[in-house]
Amino acid sequence: MLPSGLRVVTERMRGSHTFNLGFFAAVGSRWETPRLHGASHFLEHVLFKGTRRRTPEQISAAIESVGGELNAYTAKEHTCFYTRVLARDADLAVDVLADMITSSTMPAKEIESERAVILDEIAMHSDDPGETAHELITGELLGGGLDKPVIGSPRSIRELTRTQILGYWKRRYRPERLVISATGKVDHDRLVAQLSDYEALAAVRPTGASNGAANGSARPAGRPPSPVTGEPVVLTRSRRFEQSTAVLAGPGPGLFDDDRFPIGLLSIIVGGGMASRLFVEVRERRGLAYGIEAGETSYSDAGLWSVDWQCAPDRVAEILTLVRQCLADLAEHGVTAEELRRAKGQLAGQTVLSFEGPQSRMSRLGTAELHGDPRSVADLLTGYDAVTAEDVRRVAADLLAQRQVLAVVGPSTALRPLRRALTA
Amino acid sequence: MLPSGLRVVTERMRGSHTFNLGFFAAVGSRWETPRLHGASHFLEHVLFKGTRRRTPEQISAAIESVGGELNAYTAKEHTCFYTRVLARDADLAVDVLADMITSSTMPAKEIESERAVILDEIAMHSDDPGETAHELITGELLGGGLDKPVIGSPRSIRELTRTQILGYWKRRYRPERLVISATGKVDHDRLVAQLSDYEALAAVRPTGASNGAANGSARPAGRPPSPVTGEPVVLTRSRRFEQSTAVLAGPGPGLFDDDRFPIGLLSIIVGGGMASRLFVEVRERRGLAYGIEAGETSYSDAGLWSVDWQCAPDRVAEILTLVRQCLADLAEHGVTAEELRRAKGQLAGQTVLSFEGPQSRMSRLGTAELHGDPRSVADLLTGYDAVTAEDVRRVAADLLAQRQVLAVVGPSTALRPLRRALTA
Repeated sequence: MLPSGLRVVTERMRGSHTFNLGFFAAVGSRWETPRLHGASHFLEHVLFKGTRRRTPEQISAAIESVGGELNAYTAKEHTCFYTRVLARDADLAVDVLADMITSSTMPAKEIESERAVILDEIAMHSDDPGETAHELITGELLGGGLDKPVIGSPRSIRELTRTQILGYWKRRYRPERLVISATGKVDHDRLVAQLSDYEALAAVRPTGASNGAANGSARPAGRPPSPVTGEPVVLTRSRRFEQSTAVLAGPGPGLFDDDRFPIGLLSIIVGGGMASRLFVEVRERRGLAYGIEAGETSYSDAGLWSVDWQCAPDRVAEILTLVRQCLADLAEHGVTAEELRRAKGQLAGQTVLSFEGPQSRMSRLGTAELHGDPRSVADLLTGYDAVTAEDVRRVAADLLAQRQVLAVVGPSTALRPLRRALTA
Repeated sequence: MLPSGLRVVTERMRGSHTFNLGFFAAVGSRWETPRLHGASHFLEHVLFKGTRRRTPEQISAAIESVGGELNAYTAKEHTCFYTRVLARDADLAVDVLADMITSSTMPAKEIESERAVILDEIAMHSDDPGETAHELITGELLGGGLDKPVIGSPRSIRELTRTQILGYWKRRYRPERLVISATGKVDHDRLVAQLSDYEALAAVRPTGASNGAANGSARPAGRPPSPVTGEPVVLTRSRRFEQSTAVLAGPGPGLFDDDRFPIGLLSIIVGGGMASRLFVEVRERRGLAYGIEAGETSYSDAGLWSVDWQCAPDRVAEILTLVRQCLADLAEHGVTAEELRRAKGQLAGQTVLSFEGPQSRMSRLGTAELHGDPRSVADLLTGYDAVTAEDVRRVAADLLAQRQVLAVVGPSTALRPLRRALTA
């Protein structure tokens, strides 16, 4: 950590010829006020639009001309800028990202053209049935600012001013809210020395009136992030597709909730691949859908558990019934020892395989540090390994007893069979 | 190579803990007769549905329970089955793939349920605007069997019988049409010895009446794969999206066409990332679209060159005009030395970065061997490096002079402005 509060985490990887760098900021849509809705994502776009030393074209060209990748994304609890280059271009990569984050000029003309781009992006999201279904679910099941779409609304995007975006940047992109993560062929000391040359990253600044704690873990007051009880509800959006996209969801574990371990294994057993109970029943035995899968989305203090599928419009209710029967069977009879053993093996292997690449390790290192998660990958594996069959049965019963929401995006269909299948 | 004609290619990679395996077959939609249209892809699905030693669930569970991935895809000129596991599970991975390919039982019931799944998959493709636009382009610009969708038609899928699929498998999955590729922590001799235990892979079989040459490079008679002249044409499919998806395309280089080198660099200069001419003009300067990119799709003896974008429906013609102006400017004035230098650096870096991972190397090794491509990645880089500014100018002029097709998928719009922009 630098005296400014900037945190730097690295891992040197044997055999790697690449330098993988991420700047993670504790800036996301969850902490935006209504007037600033979409500001985190808008700002992420604007930071590509020129610095005191580089035009927008020069920012892109710097990394692209050495064949590297440069990109960014905004989430509900953080924003990430990342790049991947050959190791010989590491200094360049650090300079480009540090320059973007610390010395943007935010030209008014660029902000206007980016506003149009983001309005198009909102329209693209609306054309995507999976994203539309998940936004319906999230809006209904989560609270505490997690319910809002990251991208903002057409209205908030039209109304955000340059002054607002500039102020948001100055207030939020402070060194104590930033984590810099690098993996591959990386030299930690050289990286820290290079970062120390950027005054805005290295200098200790007085803490002004803060919108939340330094590490971004502030929780706004308001309704609890994830109410677990309430009426089941069916949400639909009519779209002229041939297939329907359906998501059944309920409250799920947060990042630090110990139930994430049994729920993670439950997801694998229910819908984690081609040998899972639902895939076998819905696709293999009955040919009702091309695929079906279960999984969790976790935030620092709340989460969702969901089952997703696409099918012919007249089969949504039938598949929903099979999903709920699958949960009911697990809640009553639990899992077999063999199923649990296999799910643990699957999860352990997946975890090791997914962290072989330097990019995924860079991302894990950065987000874990940002969220104050001290657990290593090995700790997580230990957590999964300790789960018993009874733990899995219990969380299946909990999920079944808690509030469930069904979102369906596709051709209009009768709601009554869906409501009946959801409450049967 | 085994006496049977089976080819085995491997690369041991330092620092890797994984075993990455692919079975590549010279079997694809291009060589299907009308009655067998979609048989390659249907067969790929069916080979997951049980062998003499494993039920469908056991096939999936074998790899999933060690956390590995098992998947497959079918293309126009080949089919690939691949898996990725921890190195300690290598023998298991080889056995699962070899078993699937050589001793399928093709249960009639499984074929029926898979038929329903594929009909759903056709509907899903039709809901995807990018895939729909590229199918329109491919159907119009390519010939020689490359014009047909890989997946088949609803009619051909409904009519394919088990006997036809079984016969197709026996005729096509012969050792001399197969390449087995493995990378990561791999032991070549052990792999070859293990493969020799499968009689169907190792035994020399009499060559029956063949549908094409042994290595699958047969070219059916018929119209040339890629007619370069003809009227420009606008193809549309009406979909109730908010955005339009547009593709402008023309004939492009085949895998062995030396023009692939200048055309590859042209694609980068025109639409290969955020510093490319079209991205800067269309998105950065004018905010007309979220993104725009150019690229090639190459087959053994033909290909396409295309520019893709998504935008508001009333902006398609305006962007099309900018795309054609960009090509016209390049055809007349060529590229600057700096642009060409940067594009070469970008392509070289991208190539090295993209082959860092063992999976992409496995795939490159396998397809290169299957297509009889003796060039190493270094050879390809040498090819790109030799391109001159005049080469790029010439291929830009060629693309502009050749036939162009515009496909637009989205809300209905007037055709006249599109036709005018396409022929201006």
